[in-house]
Amino acid sequence: MKIDAAATAPRTDGAGNIEILTAAAECFTEQGFHASSIDDVARRLGATKGRVYHYYRSKTDLFFDVHREGMRRNFDAVRPAMKLPGTGAVRLAHMLRHHALSMMENLAFETVVVQGVHMHRLGATTPAQRRTLAELMTIRNDFEALFKGVAYEGVEDGSLRIPDVSIAIKAALGAINWIAVWYRPRLGETRDDREILAEKLVDTQMSGLAART
Amino acid sequence: MKIDAAATAPRTDGAGNIEILTAAAECFTEQGFHASSIDDVARRLGATKGRVYHYYRSKTDLFFDVHREGMRRNFDAVRPAMKLPGTGAVRLAHMLRHHALSMMENLAFETVVVQGVHMHRLGATTPAQRRTLAELMTIRNDFEALFKGVAYEGVEDGSLRIPDVSIAIKAALGAINWIAVWYRPRLGETRDDREILAEKLVDTQMSGLAART
Repeated sequence: MKIDAAATAPRTDGAGNIEILTAAAECFTEQGFHASSIDDVARRLGATKGRVYHYYRSKTDLFFDVHREGMRRNFDAVRPAMKLPGTGAVRLAHMLRHHALSMMENLAFETVVVQGVHMHRLGATTPAQRRTLAELMTIRNDFEALFKGVAYEGVEDGSLRIPDVSIAIKAALGAINWIAVWYRPRLGETRDDREILAEKLVDTQMSGLAART
Repeated sequence: MKIDAAATAPRTDGAGNIEILTAAAECFTEQGFHASSIDDVARRLGATKGRVYHYYRSKTDLFFDVHREGMRRNFDAVRPAMKLPGTGAVRLAHMLRHHALSMMENLAFETVVVQGVHMHRLGATTPAQRRTLAELMTIRNDFEALFKGVAYEGVEDGSLRIPDVSIAIKAALGAINWIAVWYRPRLGETRDDREILAEKLVDTQMSGLAART
């Protein structure tokens, strides 16, 4: 970690402070944002409060960077799937599956992301915080746009039949994002277990519930 | 309103205090729970703080009753649809559609319900509050169970083809519940507009995204 490079200003690039972000994501997820303090984050990290303040001016700034890191992981999970060969339907299914796996494997970060949406929606923030939340919402819209783009390609190539792509993608992403509300890893759970769960979730979205007659 | 009947203890049956609950739901949705005060709720209501305290000991108790009322409305919306004639598939589609309409038409209450799930998940509460949250989670599980019951009937009668009912219903409800995150009523929006939107959301869940080949 290059502490020197960050000495003059709080670091927000997520490069040298992933341990702090992980501790913060876990605190926010377990105790909630309002009940968590910078002290709690430092304690979980086995570090001093000073180390956290070296990177972050406030708990809210820390929250924002956890949100950014959560979204970065979502993008990283989905982008390679987007570029696989195959029809739009095949690629959309891959993207949704990798998104589901990212939700499960980065649960603390992604729970903060979902919570961040509510903070934005609920508006309990200063003007400066609202600007940052607006930036985070743009990132989220860009993420949604990746799915919409591939969905339109699938409609074009005949592999998808979606009357309203915008609404259908919101519904499909909602089905996947809802993982943050109900999913808990089981003891001894493996990557295979998570892949089976992701497959089932995505299968509902791709094939629907109704029997094909 | 039977004020007398409530004079000895805070009322929590939701019968005589729907105006307070509505004002509270709007405050929590617009400002967030933590940034809202009993004063804000009273001001929105054009009433004294005393009137609110007559019914509720604390803001948290108020939050819980808003959550209960939101769930009550969800049950009321879905139960009649459950009892309509038709296959499991037909009834499940009705239930999801009515749930989607309830999410849109009770947006402030349902946003608090979604927020409540996170508060539970995040655990930032006293033991007494955790007991109440556990009760609310039971209500939510009962709600999910209504959908699962009809889904099993649909599998039985051949109208639904669902390999894992529990996961599929979680996904479908997630797709609908996500409305609380992105939906805002448009100016001049009618019931017809909302029914079209609900239909599109439910169609994705019933028929899926993939073209039938």
